[in-house]
Amino acid sequence: MQKVNIAEKLSLFSDYYNPRIIGELNGQQVKAVKLKGEFVWHHHDNEDELFMVIKGILTMELRDKIIDIHEGEFLIVPRGTEHKPVAREEVHILLFEPAGTVNTGGEQNEFTRNVLEKL
Amino acid sequence: MQKVNIAEKLSLFSDYYNPRIIGELNGQQVKAVKLKGEFVWHHHDNEDELFMVIKGILTMELRDKIIDIHEGEFLIVPRGTEHKPVAREEVHILLFEPAGTVNTGGEQNEFTRNVLEKL
Repeated sequence: MQKVNIAEKLSLFSDYYNPRIIGELNGQQVKAVKLKGEFVWHHHDNEDELFMVIKGILTMELRDKIIDIHEGEFLIVPRGTEHKPVAREEVHILLFEPAGTVNTGGEQNEFTRNVLEKL
Repeated sequence: MQKVNIAEKLSLFSDYYNPRIIGELNGQQVKAVKLKGEFVWHHHDNEDELFMVIKGILTMELRDKIIDIHEGEFLIVPRGTEHKPVAREEVHILLFEPAGTVNTGGEQNEFTRNVLEKL
């Protein structure tokens, strides 16, 4: 059993939209991700997804509104809800979601990461 | 769907060892807690528990070692593992654990909070 330093984990990589697993518990995973630019519209049929901002501002586009999530804030996107993360500048976040959640939901495209590195 | 500001939620209460629910997803809950002083030794038979430090230093006593968890760090205590949180000064943390996890595990004592407020 070892503690995890979030900033240290984030310092180990620099690519965008490529989540790393930094914790696992109760069938859920904690992932660290760096974002820059626009992601794609998608949803998850069976998984709620928590986005916690560690650095920067994450803009979450939803079909009916847009929410800016700042450092020290989180947003839970319920299953079935279409969403598109947008990072105007580099953003560092944590995700909490069920193990095996695919970052692009039911779609496979150039952003899809089916196999994630554990740090 | 609304974002959650962690510091704002923590500003809404001042008592210790009384977790508030500030998020729910996938059968799990996000709880905000302020700690000061020594908690009790306990374990959870069926729940892994994540402790993320928002402010201060949380000392986690385990039977074979002691881990100081600082701001920006987290520790996952696996199910079945005896642990005792100690806060020498006031500490603010988030917990991620399955809904219904009781703070004192299988024991009922003066620290037990069976019903938690949602903020």
